[in-house]
Amino acid sequence: MEPILVRRCRFAVDPVEGVLRDVDIYLEGGQISCVGECTEKSGIVLDAHSMICMPALYNAHTHAAMVLFRGFHDDAKLEEWLERVWRAEKRLTPGIVADASKLAVMEMLSTGTAGFVDMYFYPEETARVAEEMGIRALVGPVMLENMTSIEKWVSETLRLAKNLEKGRLVRLVVNVHSLYAAPIEAVEAGLEIAARTGARLQMHAAETRREVYAVKKRYGKFPVEALRDAGLLTGKLHLVHMGWATSWEYRAVAEAGATVAHCPVSNMKLATAGFLPLHDLQGEGITVGLGTDGAASNNVLDMFREMKAAVLLQRHSYWDTRVKALHALRAATLGGAEIMGLRAGRLKPGYEADLVLLDASSLHLQPLRADNLVSALVYAATGSDVAYTIVAGRIAYSPEKASRFSREARRIAERLNSFFKEETMVRGKGASPSGLVSR
Amino acid sequence: MEPILVRRCRFAVDPVEGVLRDVDIYLEGGQISCVGECTEKSGIVLDAHSMICMPALYNAHTHAAMVLFRGFHDDAKLEEWLERVWRAEKRLTPGIVADASKLAVMEMLSTGTAGFVDMYFYPEETARVAEEMGIRALVGPVMLENMTSIEKWVSETLRLAKNLEKGRLVRLVVNVHSLYAAPIEAVEAGLEIAARTGARLQMHAAETRREVYAVKKRYGKFPVEALRDAGLLTGKLHLVHMGWATSWEYRAVAEAGATVAHCPVSNMKLATAGFLPLHDLQGEGITVGLGTDGAASNNVLDMFREMKAAVLLQRHSYWDTRVKALHALRAATLGGAEIMGLRAGRLKPGYEADLVLLDASSLHLQPLRADNLVSALVYAATGSDVAYTIVAGRIAYSPEKASRFSREARRIAERLNSFFKEETMVRGKGASPSGLVSR
Repeated sequence: MEPILVRRCRFAVDPVEGVLRDVDIYLEGGQISCVGECTEKSGIVLDAHSMICMPALYNAHTHAAMVLFRGFHDDAKLEEWLERVWRAEKRLTPGIVADASKLAVMEMLSTGTAGFVDMYFYPEETARVAEEMGIRALVGPVMLENMTSIEKWVSETLRLAKNLEKGRLVRLVVNVHSLYAAPIEAVEAGLEIAARTGARLQMHAAETRREVYAVKKRYGKFPVEALRDAGLLTGKLHLVHMGWATSWEYRAVAEAGATVAHCPVSNMKLATAGFLPLHDLQGEGITVGLGTDGAASNNVLDMFREMKAAVLLQRHSYWDTRVKALHALRAATLGGAEIMGLRAGRLKPGYEADLVLLDASSLHLQPLRADNLVSALVYAATGSDVAYTIVAGRIAYSPEKASRFSREARRIAERLNSFFKEETMVRGKGASPSGLVSR
Repeated sequence: MEPILVRRCRFAVDPVEGVLRDVDIYLEGGQISCVGECTEKSGIVLDAHSMICMPALYNAHTHAAMVLFRGFHDDAKLEEWLERVWRAEKRLTPGIVADASKLAVMEMLSTGTAGFVDMYFYPEETARVAEEMGIRALVGPVMLENMTSIEKWVSETLRLAKNLEKGRLVRLVVNVHSLYAAPIEAVEAGLEIAARTGARLQMHAAETRREVYAVKKRYGKFPVEALRDAGLLTGKLHLVHMGWATSWEYRAVAEAGATVAHCPVSNMKLATAGFLPLHDLQGEGITVGLGTDGAASNNVLDMFREMKAAVLLQRHSYWDTRVKALHALRAATLGGAEIMGLRAGRLKPGYEADLVLLDASSLHLQPLRADNLVSALVYAATGSDVAYTIVAGRIAYSPEKASRFSREARRIAERLNSFFKEETMVRGKGASPSGLVSR
């Protein structure tokens, strides 16, 4: 692996120390080894005099291959949409998941994401694609009680863990869908796998009011209470959504050292109405990451847009501006890195060489200065401003790769759309939720 | 003006009739003259076989030149931010407003906006820039009681109206800041100008709770009640924000035929907590447009991102998904067109030739089909996907113009940043709201 010299960044942002001007960044052996004057270094040189350099972003919760269902009946009522997606998911094949995962990974790399925590079917396909494309990922089979048994799921998870051992970028995450779609015994079994493999256990929790009451009905307790009282609330857990939890559940999460993924766009688009108290949680020392959730409920995998949405949702819900751009930036970088088990999210020697370079000349970033740079990254930038994404010291996305990604995406999109031919026939003409399709 | 043949759009969207496939669109004399098979037409030919064609968007409320203040202390407390902006605004000059307006217009054209309703100082500068750059605008001096008198403002407004008569794209809007920053007599005087000139009267109304109570204290009534009881609530009014109005005020607006601008990102970012009941208002037949507000509180002028934010805000606030992509699309096209006094917002012969062509190959739009196209435009696209913006039958933005815009933006940004040198000195080192600036 050849070292990379990122030369003379116009601006560089470390989410803790601040904004630097005109610095070099040198990457070798997959790590940052110099920030500042690194002039006598050799390797691949990236001229960054018109770029903003920052740590790459981590998507703390997604269902990558669900780009397949981007815009699929997504304005229908929630129940109708879910039913249609579930019906279509029965027709999934490893090949379709591989294609869709590749499309998702290209979208993530091209928008500055260096890693993602995934939950979906055929995780071995997503793992293979992630390794090939050079993005970090946590993947694992999903425990859903109407689709598999605990025993079968445990053995599949352990088999995948073994296969992933030789990988460079992809690791296991133990995936239990939720307490409403999996028995609490699955969490117990999952934590055993987590202890054996060093993985985290990811589950949806407290996403909707309906779910919270379903769990209450089943266990007599709210989701986090049920986990805690069963002795299953540990620092290994990664809890997703958490918009409908109580204050004492958040305190229990803090005490246990579990991590949380906040998915503001998905929560708003699905009208869950819940909102995670980001400021309080970060204040209590809980590690919070940001997630796009699947493209079916977002509809993009752009972490820059997610950062802005996070601040907007908090401010609207709390009637004040206590949540700042910097809180979102830290969640998307440092928070996500910790959830993924990485020493990353900083521009400092010894940290992982996961970087993003953005084009500082974009119209919507002007006039750009050191004092409004964090604001520009969170409130103005989108993934489309990303010029380079570097993952583990390798250039995974660049202007040169952009056209290759486009060509590949066109081929994949054609294959994926043929998946919908059957759906379209079932639906019939004019049955689109918007009532708009004609000719 | 040479006619334009937009040849073989892969998809074309009319916000009323739906999605068309493989159609030509012919533009002549500033209007759409053919949609469908327009093969024997001559003129400039745009190959659209890999494009999505749609009516252009209208920004129903902005302060264009406030791109100057993009990211300027925008995470400080609202009062501190406002005070800093007001202090800096005292140093504005016509040259700065011209520069900033040009930057704003380039951003708007490059993101698919064909017209905007403006409210800011030195409107004659913004008007000149808009004409030069080929974008539609409504502009007018602002009535603010601590800065001018009604008499002075009326004469300035009438003078500008006269100057605008010879223009092609820019028209007058009568601007009264609000009932809390201008006396109600200004609205009366403004409506007289509106009657004489055919212009609309734009004012902020019911943006914040604080404002609503300030008006209640001054007039004993809520803003729209005060206007109605003074006989000033007419179809000429364009009311901006309206997030803190009562149900009977919305009914009064519907009866009067006044129009409304909804600015979801600005409302959320400033934590006003109010939210305009978009679905109810559109249901009552009120013309609602979407506005970005100024870049100081957004921080972009991208109407695609505004459409998504509109749906997200509604769904989060109402706990249901009644507001669909299509409602936002109609507000941003048809709604904005009506507010600007244009027969536009449709892909139909006889409508104004204001069009946007988007690159259909963007990764985040895949897999793209007719049945998820509206969803793609509202939930996935951003202004960065725009390839061409056509205004009044002329190509105002194109891939060729993009690099010219970038160069021009760089020059302008340098000049605008020198405006902040003084501010920076006043502020001193390390006084940034994020506490992040170093070196």
